[in-house]
Amino acid sequence: MSEPDCVFCKIVRGDAPSSRIYEDDDVLAFLDVRPFSSGHTLIVSKRHASGLEQLDPDDGAKVFRAAHRVALALRHSDLPVDGVNVVLNDGVAASQTVFHVHVHVIARRRGDKLKMAGRLLVRRGGELDVAAAQLRAGLAKLEAEGR
Amino acid sequence: MSEPDCVFCKIVRGDAPSSRIYEDDDVLAFLDVRPFSSGHTLIVSKRHASGLEQLDPDDGAKVFRAAHRVALALRHSDLPVDGVNVVLNDGVAASQTVFHVHVHVIARRRGDKLKMAGRLLVRRGGELDVAAAQLRAGLAKLEAEGR
Repeated sequence: MSEPDCVFCKIVRGDAPSSRIYEDDDVLAFLDVRPFSSGHTLIVSKRHASGLEQLDPDDGAKVFRAAHRVALALRHSDLPVDGVNVVLNDGVAASQTVFHVHVHVIARRRGDKLKMAGRLLVRRGGELDVAAAQLRAGLAKLEAEGR
Repeated sequence: MSEPDCVFCKIVRGDAPSSRIYEDDDVLAFLDVRPFSSGHTLIVSKRHASGLEQLDPDDGAKVFRAAHRVALALRHSDLPVDGVNVVLNDGVAASQTVFHVHVHVIARRRGDKLKMAGRLLVRRGGELDVAAAQLRAGLAKLEAEGR
């Protein structure tokens, strides 16, 4: 259910800090500490599963549903967004680095393909994003529209 | 519901050819005609939606649930798979090229990062994959295991 040493389980439990974007009984969305772009969000199931093989299909559907919503929130926020990637990396060969299944929601800009290609090849350091408030405003806009 | 000129709607209707992997009332999975690797599959909702903004959240959850299953099928098939990416590109800036929402399920091998980075930058031509039977065998294995 919850793994003592898993960094994402720690975030879920509140034992490690994160910029929380969205939360319900089953999933948690928080900002990636090494963002590709402002608003880069990770969505996880609160129940630990290291990969797709271990992930309950219902939990997976909930994670993806939340990712869809966060993607819309990005577009409805004031963050710079021309497009959005929703990405799940399953396994080291697919660039998974934390072994608690997570979906990336990534804002893209026109002309940033070289940057994205570079990120595939070189892990970057980074600092904590401060876009959480803008993303939450995007979610609030969706709610205000009755969506 | 169905767009006359949309190539994926044509595939759903059976008016254009495809290598079908999986189908139910709501979603269709078929091989990408320009595969990154063998077994590269696209999953679409049968109801037309050009992007995430237009996609019904329930339809989205069904597409992602099917993508999860196809990803497991890849790993349970005899195709060469070290990892799997599940990717949705929303908008031109995010590399969307067909404007009917679709999720890519892509088999990855150790050491293919440069190839993946290159694909981001250069669109490749390609030929129809013949991995459909192997992927269907993977799905059959999942079913045989009662999953």
